Amino acid sequence: MAEVSKAEGGMAADIQGLTPRVASGPDISIEELQLAARNHSMPLEALRYDITPVGMHYLLIHWDIPSVDPAGWRLTLGGSVSEQLSLTLADLKGLPKVSSQVTLECAGNGRALFTPRPVSQPWLLEAVGNAEWTGTPLRALIEAARPLARAAEVVFTGLDRGVQGGIEQQYERSLSLTEASRAEALLAYEMNGLPLTPQHGFPLRLVVPGWYGMAQVKWLHSITLVDEPFRGYQQEPAYHVASSDEDLGNPVTRILPRSLMVPPGIPDFISRIRYLSPGSCVLEGRAWSGHGHINQVRVSTGGGLDWANAELGPQVSEFSWRPWRYVWHAEAGEYELCCRAADSAGNIQPLTTEWNAQGMCNNAVQRVRVVVGTGVVPVQSPAGP
Amino acid sequence: MAEVSKAEGGMAADIQGLTPRVASGPDISIEELQLAARNHSMPLEALRYDITPVGMHYLLIHWDIPSVDPAGWRLTLGGSVSEQLSLTLADLKGLPKVSSQVTLECAGNGRALFTPRPVSQPWLLEAVGNAEWTGTPLRALIEAARPLARAAEVVFTGLDRGVQGGIEQQYERSLSLTEASRAEALLAYEMNGLPLTPQHGFPLRLVVPGWYGMAQVKWLHSITLVDEPFRGYQQEPAYHVASSDEDLGNPVTRILPRSLMVPPGIPDFISRIRYLSPGSCVLEGRAWSGHGHINQVRVSTGGGLDWANAELGPQVSEFSWRPWRYVWHAEAGEYELCCRAADSAGNIQPLTTEWNAQGMCNNAVQRVRVVVGTGVVPVQSPAGP
Repeated sequence: MAEVSKAEGGMAADIQGLTPRVASGPDISIEELQLAARNHSMPLEALRYDITPVGMHYLLIHWDIPSVDPAGWRLTLGGSVSEQLSLTLADLKGLPKVSSQVTLECAGNGRALFTPRPVSQPWLLEAVGNAEWTGTPLRALIEAARPLARAAEVVFTGLDRGVQGGIEQQYERSLSLTEASRAEALLAYEMNGLPLTPQHGFPLRLVVPGWYGMAQVKWLHSITLVDEPFRGYQQEPAYHVASSDEDLGNPVTRILPRSLMVPPGIPDFISRIRYLSPGSCVLEGRAWSGHGHINQVRVSTGGGLDWANAELGPQVSEFSWRPWRYVWHAEAGEYELCCRAADSAGNIQPLTTEWNAQGMCNNAVQRVRVVVGTGVVPVQSPAGP
Repeated sequence: MAEVSKAEGGMAADIQGLTPRVASGPDISIEELQLAARNHSMPLEALRYDITPVGMHYLLIHWDIPSVDPAGWRLTLGGSVSEQLSLTLADLKGLPKVSSQVTLECAGNGRALFTPRPVSQPWLLEAVGNAEWTGTPLRALIEAARPLARAAEVVFTGLDRGVQGGIEQQYERSLSLTEASRAEALLAYEMNGLPLTPQHGFPLRLVVPGWYGMAQVKWLHSITLVDEPFRGYQQEPAYHVASSDEDLGNPVTRILPRSLMVPPGIPDFISRIRYLSPGSCVLEGRAWSGHGHINQVRVSTGGGLDWANAELGPQVSEFSWRPWRYVWHAEAGEYELCCRAADSAGNIQPLTTEWNAQGMCNNAVQRVRVVVGTGVVPVQSPAGP
């Protein structure tokens, strides 16, 4: 990594680290818009699909999508191991193949709902997706390299490269050797039964079920066992829940519980306020947590003042989202609909979250504004099966 | 269509038509961010692909993505015809099948670069994509229905539904019977060799090569021949180049010429300013127009003060984009790179465009800020083949 010279004049002075880190008002700057235009969230009506179709799954790409020639690409596994490995994509496809449904969510999901808003990708609350990932277990590959006794962490390096915080870098994150050796951690080369698309990490990415998206390194090209805690930029200071930029705070790890609903009725193009007619209305959505199974979803039609239990559907895989539904008898009026998940580890989604400097882990309950009118707009089923 | 009651109180008062139509300052409101989070543009590095991979193609969805059960879905063709038609998806797939590469672009592309900014989807300049569309020619179907002599226009109705401008509506647009009968107009059921994804119009959409995106009706379910000009909301007042909201202006039709480049070097995460080392740097991109072939692309490395011809690659299809490249000998310093296309109809991309109230057709030249440094960041090829 190299420091980017800051002496080059006006434009270079705009790089992160020198810009204000918190927005001065409620509105979004053109710089944040540039990120919002690139990095798309999952439209909430896509909560209707068990598996998020390609192109609707959320995406956060720090720099550019690399162009990778699979013929020249190799995965290397080295560092504190007895045997260095180098594998082609064909080698990896020849290893035991497993598939798993995993819900991924960006750690910054909800950032744009903090006041003041930390300046970064301005997510509202749809930075999520549930895909079927296929690949080979990471654990077997680590075992094959025979880690040295002193190895403590595993560093994953992607081919994506750019400048952040004034530092030129490739995207790199680590996991403890214990976490990387979990049975569920995958080196994935397929998504929803097809080869990874370029934007999701072709030819290979890491999938660590239960963790926020920053751990799911895309365009993976090297795995390095190290003896000391890794302190690359994306590990530290990035992805920490901290009270200020001066405070390191606590690292972001597993996904906190969240529930989202398909907004019912039909939307206004600009405001996204929903309109529907009085009558029976099925509210439905998904809930997930990286800390345990979802064991409760509650729904409020009164802005969080009243709560009722939603009916839970089956959770098809340990680390995928769980469907829920609730039948609402909607009468004419204006409403704020909310939903709230709890997991088997005892975590309950909060009504409000404490602000933090990087805008991480804002899993406060969703609030959907609805106008139930007098027949002008018929009730629509928000989602087919 | 029904007027949505505006007497329902505070929330209903936010619907478009009652909100200010022009932003009060340079920053983006949360309402515009809601649209930017849903409707994603094509990351500019995807200009490297002849065919835009699924999930990178731009998307503009006015309301929600409908959920369509293909078993129950029918395409009807009626109105001023001698024979009403009703076809299943299997019927359509049994008709003559053609494939064509077509570049689609949103008419609002460039809106967020207008000052003041008209309030709508805040596109910067990447609302584009080039796909291989497969389907059956529209013309043959219209001919099979035997239009009456008085038929003048063809109205295309999608299943997407919502409120815009205070009016509840399904998405509907018309073409003249002449334009709809062009050999190139397709009823498409595949994109890039696969069934349409839900967000691109499953099970069927219109593809009218050369026209901006508003004509490319998704989730198509009825085609109606009419005798008088169609005046639905999306035809009028929407999608007009007008000096104010009081002035109807001129309808948006075919795509104006535009060229975009793959930003060279590597970006800063927040500012997206590009960094590269001195030396030879290949600038490359694509150019397109709905009015004719691209016959020139010029490049400026000096903010539009100096221009040089780029080398043009082959244009594989009449309505798809054309690749270009230019070798730049980059010396240390700060630059604003520009590119500018001209088409065979004599249209030249302007340096600045005249403001209009809906923020349509802003095809002013792209400007990419680049810092060429002294070795801190090596030159990267912006795109592989």
